[in-house]
Amino acid sequence: MATIEEKTSCITLINVFTVESAKQQQLVDLLIKATETTMRRLPGFIAANIHRSVWTALAFANYAQWRRVEDHQKMLKNPEVIPHMQQAAALATSIDPKLYEVVEVCDAENAQHT
Amino acid sequence: MATIEEKTSCITLINVFTVESAKQQQLVDLLIKATETTMRRLPGFIAANIHRSVWTALAFANYAQWRRVEDHQKMLKNPEVIPHMQQAAALATSIDPKLYEVVEVCDAENAQHT
Repeated sequence: MATIEEKTSCITLINVFTVESAKQQQLVDLLIKATETTMRRLPGFIAANIHRSVWTALAFANYAQWRRVEDHQKMLKNPEVIPHMQQAAALATSIDPKLYEVVEVCDAENAQHT
Repeated sequence: MATIEEKTSCITLINVFTVESAKQQQLVDLLIKATETTMRRLPGFIAANIHRSVWTALAFANYAQWRRVEDHQKMLKNPEVIPHMQQAAALATSIDPKLYEVVEVCDAENAQHT
């Protein structure tokens, strides 16, 4: 289970992939495999959360957390990661990765805080 | 604190806004105000998490959770919400909202599970 918090010491990568229907299963399998075999062992990796779009199933989003910007940059140059990224780029119609920091977290008025 | 889980009974809206630098503070203030004054009181709202891009500060993302697709659809037609959305559309260069379901959650190999 991943958590989203303000003032936490992590950065967030939100990567949105669009993909033709014929290739969507291949892409989601690749994203899961890349995360489970490689990403999760890398320094600074906290969590990856793969999402599939509800309406068209033509988009996937990875909401991933890394400890520091530098950890994410090192990952991009990792020789084990590069082939996964090349495969994803070949399968997807577009890839739109952006790095973020959390500004505000707001839950429902009647949410139970524990 | 928001949480991301597999097989949870919620849907996820990831809405990516791009914005000119001169308007970024207005946009983030608007997103926070809309969430705190209106969204969080609506049926089915679980959480909104506003993110600011790290490199350029020209993008914001809202990672929001709603109980059901129908709750999100009702929100889009709510007369209190519509003016907020019109203001956001006027401030942003582009808005790209997509609804998702969580497919896979993966944390670091050595993560502590509680």
